Amino acid sequence: MVPHLITALTGPINELEQRIIDSMPATERWFRLEWMEHTPPFYTSVDIRNAGFKLAPVDTNLFPGGWNNLTPEMLPLAVQAAMAAIEKICPEARNLLIIPENHTRNSYYLSNLVQLQRIFNMAGLNVRVGSISAEVKKNTVVELPGGETITLEPVVRTRGRIGLKNFDPCTILLNNDLSAGAPGILEDLHEQYLLPPLHAGWTVRRKSNHFRSYEEVSKRFGKLLGIDPWLINPLFGKCGEVDFSQDVGLECVQTSVDALLAKIRRKYKEYGIHEKPFVVVKADNGTYGMGIMTVHDAKELQELGRKTRNKMAVVKDGQPVHDVIVQEGVLTQERMHDAVAEPVVYMMDRYVVGGFYRIHADRGVDENLNAPGSGFVPLAFDHSNHLPQLGARPGASAPNRFYMYGVIARLAMLAASYELEATNPDAETYD
Amino acid sequence: MVPHLITALTGPINELEQRIIDSMPATERWFRLEWMEHTPPFYTSVDIRNAGFKLAPVDTNLFPGGWNNLTPEMLPLAVQAAMAAIEKICPEARNLLIIPENHTRNSYYLSNLVQLQRIFNMAGLNVRVGSISAEVKKNTVVELPGGETITLEPVVRTRGRIGLKNFDPCTILLNNDLSAGAPGILEDLHEQYLLPPLHAGWTVRRKSNHFRSYEEVSKRFGKLLGIDPWLINPLFGKCGEVDFSQDVGLECVQTSVDALLAKIRRKYKEYGIHEKPFVVVKADNGTYGMGIMTVHDAKELQELGRKTRNKMAVVKDGQPVHDVIVQEGVLTQERMHDAVAEPVVYMMDRYVVGGFYRIHADRGVDENLNAPGSGFVPLAFDHSNHLPQLGARPGASAPNRFYMYGVIARLAMLAASYELEATNPDAETYD
Repeated sequence: MVPHLITALTGPINELEQRIIDSMPATERWFRLEWMEHTPPFYTSVDIRNAGFKLAPVDTNLFPGGWNNLTPEMLPLAVQAAMAAIEKICPEARNLLIIPENHTRNSYYLSNLVQLQRIFNMAGLNVRVGSISAEVKKNTVVELPGGETITLEPVVRTRGRIGLKNFDPCTILLNNDLSAGAPGILEDLHEQYLLPPLHAGWTVRRKSNHFRSYEEVSKRFGKLLGIDPWLINPLFGKCGEVDFSQDVGLECVQTSVDALLAKIRRKYKEYGIHEKPFVVVKADNGTYGMGIMTVHDAKELQELGRKTRNKMAVVKDGQPVHDVIVQEGVLTQERMHDAVAEPVVYMMDRYVVGGFYRIHADRGVDENLNAPGSGFVPLAFDHSNHLPQLGARPGASAPNRFYMYGVIARLAMLAASYELEATNPDAETYD
Repeated sequence: MVPHLITALTGPINELEQRIIDSMPATERWFRLEWMEHTPPFYTSVDIRNAGFKLAPVDTNLFPGGWNNLTPEMLPLAVQAAMAAIEKICPEARNLLIIPENHTRNSYYLSNLVQLQRIFNMAGLNVRVGSISAEVKKNTVVELPGGETITLEPVVRTRGRIGLKNFDPCTILLNNDLSAGAPGILEDLHEQYLLPPLHAGWTVRRKSNHFRSYEEVSKRFGKLLGIDPWLINPLFGKCGEVDFSQDVGLECVQTSVDALLAKIRRKYKEYGIHEKPFVVVKADNGTYGMGIMTVHDAKELQELGRKTRNKMAVVKDGQPVHDVIVQEGVLTQERMHDAVAEPVVYMMDRYVVGGFYRIHADRGVDENLNAPGSGFVPLAFDHSNHLPQLGARPGASAPNRFYMYGVIARLAMLAASYELEATNPDAETYD
């Protein structure tokens, strides 16, 4: 199916689309050279916002769920990319262990695991799912609504390696973002590949580190294309030592919001954009759409109600928020039927393998869509639409639009690669 | 579209299909390990025959045309595989030169070039088409029926490198099977990659070498799966110093046909197959479906008419036939509507990227279909059908059927890799 797109196709984005399409071979070569120097994250999903005048990633997930939302048409691309990834990491591998999130009873999430299992099975691996949750003490078979079943087995650690009973994997695929901290059972593994590495988990990761890397990437890519990097880069600031529940550190957030809104206003003026600037205040280690707030005026922060404070004070797994990122808000002008939509692009190794629209009927164009009530619609990606159609009028071609999304998503993936290098605790030992 | 398949699903092939599906992770791992030791040909197409009781490759093309017959749905897989291939060979490459066949006015063939150009362009290369034909003295723009155009430019050689005016490629992609011999302009290139290499051309290549390698591959794979390799391997013999036009050397062919028919008869008896055995006599360096003859009895060779003799005496580009391969005939039981059909599987680097059915309404189940009057129907491959469906009843699942075709095609590709290693004239210098 091809989603019905309604996008406010104003000037600059069409120019950007045209630049990206015209620069395709140069862009692909640029990525190729970057991947000679930098290792892509094992798998990545990127939330993108298309404001019509600006196109930017707003979140980069290194433990993507939602693989079940990809259409069957996209599966061969994912399998081929998985083959390429495995070949580089552990070509002799027979066994792959997937470690899922601990709250494993959500059937959507379990369908995601079934899909990952299918992809790596088809790529030539025996795949089993091993839980590190204390609740999984014995093999547990869960039947899913579609009639499929998944078996969760307790992970065991023996002589510095982890595995399952009679199952010793070469590679361990984390599908658990470690918000609650890196469990000891995963540390100091003996000759096993843990992917993504522990420091990709939210205990270590910070959105502000990611977007600092992304800023660097967008500047370099902007130079290659001859465009203002702001067109693809959301501005941001950050504040530490914040405690929303105790009203601590909010002055920094207010100052940051004020400064950022001023910057955005100048940019809007430069490009003749008649929209109301806004920023999004997010927990710097937040995920799952938790700890997120849209702000149009710094004064709003003085009048936060108790409910909002509490919502902002804690994120997934009850982790308290101390660091906050204040990010330029990027409107979404994409619609599916009447619902606000944002594209989510999925990558395996260095390859774009699919995507979908996250839609939310009850949210505004300036709000976070990753919230209860959201739905998923496969991107027109199926049917080769992420390949550009050369010569099509800018803005008129769905394939060109999706190629552009794939480029922006890969820029965010590259930024994540820089970010993981910079935060690698073992980095010194490699020099 | 899903082709309407009618296949005589007798015992052994279902068992084979089941074995292949059950062994999927082991098979994929086996290929992965093979590709650690051996380099896949740059691109390959394989003609496959499905007799119901036996499934085997009958021709392996290292300069595949017909890329235009692949559906748009398959394009992303081809682009992704092309990216992987380029990355390994010449990651810094900006430019790719395609050298086409010399008889370049056939619009189907030119559409094939346009498709190849598209694939490599999307993989991040500037792609131009340079002819080594003496007829192409200046840039020639050809308009194709679909409205596309292609520009053929004369290849120039400067300081040991070949290219076009103002175009110096890192990699040269041959789409010319060199039946007429390797032209001097392509020899001893200075720091340029010529792919496939010159010795993959039909001046050097022999079908009998290929099928000797394939026999080895099928034995090893048969061991992995625990099956009789005959189920996937066409038996063969060969004769040298044959001249059909002068009636020279035909005794060897007769003896070979007799011996092979006896072997096939024994195998048919072993498996309870009630079909009439036949062999196919082919020019050992033949291509384009030329120099091919179906024989049911060695006596037929004593009664060859003048027309058949002449047809068998010369192949493409007027090359005389001296070496002959006598190959076990494999019936095709696949039908599209009422026409006899055989699957053709396309691969780029080590990846299956698509395929189609070659159909011919006027040919029998024991005849060569690569002949005037043949047509092409995309394989059900589009819509992820080359990924197996675990748990489906053997023979009942199109995806499983196509996964099996992909496995057999890759075995033939692996055999081509062995073959190219064994015939590499520069092999000694690498040890």
